[in-house]
Amino acid sequence: MAARILDGVAVAQQIRSEMAARAAEFTRRAGRRAALQIVLVGDKADSQIYVNSKMKSAADEGMKATLSHLPASATLGEILRLVETLNADPEVDGILVQAPLPQSFGSTAIQQVFDSIDPAKDVDGVTPLNVGRLVQNRAALVACTPAGIVELLERSQIDIAGKHAVVIGRSDIVGKPVSLLLLHHHATITVCHSRTKDLASVAASADILVPALGRPGFVRRAFVKPGATVIDVGINLVTDRNVAYGLFHENHPRRGLFDRKGSVLVGDVHPEVEEVAGAMTRVPGGVGPLTIAMLMANTIKAAESRAKST
Amino acid sequence: MAARILDGVAVAQQIRSEMAARAAEFTRRAGRRAALQIVLVGDKADSQIYVNSKMKSAADEGMKATLSHLPASATLGEILRLVETLNADPEVDGILVQAPLPQSFGSTAIQQVFDSIDPAKDVDGVTPLNVGRLVQNRAALVACTPAGIVELLERSQIDIAGKHAVVIGRSDIVGKPVSLLLLHHHATITVCHSRTKDLASVAASADILVPALGRPGFVRRAFVKPGATVIDVGINLVTDRNVAYGLFHENHPRRGLFDRKGSVLVGDVHPEVEEVAGAMTRVPGGVGPLTIAMLMANTIKAAESRAKST
Repeated sequence: MAARILDGVAVAQQIRSEMAARAAEFTRRAGRRAALQIVLVGDKADSQIYVNSKMKSAADEGMKATLSHLPASATLGEILRLVETLNADPEVDGILVQAPLPQSFGSTAIQQVFDSIDPAKDVDGVTPLNVGRLVQNRAALVACTPAGIVELLERSQIDIAGKHAVVIGRSDIVGKPVSLLLLHHHATITVCHSRTKDLASVAASADILVPALGRPGFVRRAFVKPGATVIDVGINLVTDRNVAYGLFHENHPRRGLFDRKGSVLVGDVHPEVEEVAGAMTRVPGGVGPLTIAMLMANTIKAAESRAKST
Repeated sequence: MAARILDGVAVAQQIRSEMAARAAEFTRRAGRRAALQIVLVGDKADSQIYVNSKMKSAADEGMKATLSHLPASATLGEILRLVETLNADPEVDGILVQAPLPQSFGSTAIQQVFDSIDPAKDVDGVTPLNVGRLVQNRAALVACTPAGIVELLERSQIDIAGKHAVVIGRSDIVGKPVSLLLLHHHATITVCHSRTKDLASVAASADILVPALGRPGFVRRAFVKPGATVIDVGINLVTDRNVAYGLFHENHPRRGLFDRKGSVLVGDVHPEVEEVAGAMTRVPGGVGPLTIAMLMANTIKAAESRAKST
């Protein structure tokens, strides 16, 4: 039996229209729009695409979205000073610094920048204070992708409590926070990673499987218990024909897409999993739209909470 | 074959003598002793016992230990003002507020007090900032019991990397932080709790089992894979004769102890598990002494780091 496809676009749209209503209410009360400020450093193409989607969504939902675009030649000091200015600006509700920074900044600079964000404006949930509050199950602002995954499960009427959730990947931005959220929703959680032994059989013990490792089509049929829910967090651009053809059979429309464009966007889950899973997301159209919807939710939450506390 | 018993007292002693050397070096350089300040509110008997052990250990290792003992009738405001004073005192390196507060304070007061501690002096690892840094694998000050568990495993030459660690319990103070630490040491981790289905069989999949649920003798033979390492975090005072007799057979010396004293301290692990585990801790003499040793380690770390940054 084919899996029920969880439509991330539809659920995201539902959340976004709720947020648009709250944004309108905020504007009415505060006399200004809730404001999201995005900081982008350099010209990485996919970062620009992500940033544009976020800007457009904020505008669509009736918020103010502003981009501070610094050149790749900017210094860390300049970025930190910019964040400081945005922290101090009473008309900025949410600050998002698009990761990654250009490689020239080294690997620790991004966390230094994240650390400098006012936690009350941390709509991406990256400051240690907000992460600590997440562990303590009292976070106001939670990282958008993990929050989106839980929202998608809940709005799709998929029970989390008492279920065994297996997360593949232990990143700060997805693996760890989504595990904590699922734990707080009363799942038994298992976190797997590159050092996990017999990963396929651990994954196959999951009622809810959340691959977030960034390897195209890595999760095969053998990783999935029949009837399990699979939430694919990977977003991988495949440009290798062998990889694309290994994922999509001859008559699959997405193979045709690859043939025309020379690339195709795929998740961490092989399409064959649709034959065994009970419910699953697709890439694109799965978790991605939820990430943006939750950014909108965080921005309006931050705006409301800041308005209350002043 | 009987399990190898992991001797928490011996490992703690080793750590404490290392800390005594660092404390002496600190005193020589700083011209004052590293200083731990404990705040105790009310007269709960076991809290007083814990506090006395901590005070004595700090003194033994050449640190200064001071107790602020407030009556149960103190107000939350008084506690918060006291913490503020200790935060501002340049000669206080570590602040520990003994949990729990008297019941009259309600359930949220303790976190409010924790939140008010300067993270640089947070030797119990309870502030959200330090918890967030733990998630991000860059914590300087980690909760003492979780840190002690990892230290005990490492100093007992028990590999963590690539192993499956199952933690039973999801408290802020043990279950969640020890899971994160084990994950950062490259274990595959599973966190179980009251809503976990078929707990015994999940536990029996563990190479390293960490029961931290607070139920005397809950973990039986069927919960343990032969040869697994079992780290018992429970500390339960049993006063019920049926419970005590169910744990200790007729000729067990601890049954004799119970008969003489009317109570006995036991862990979450039934003694029969010693017949199946490869290595395990006992209660008392297991994780408990490590908790105190790690408090000493955190205090000296905090003192060194504060001296460096001023």
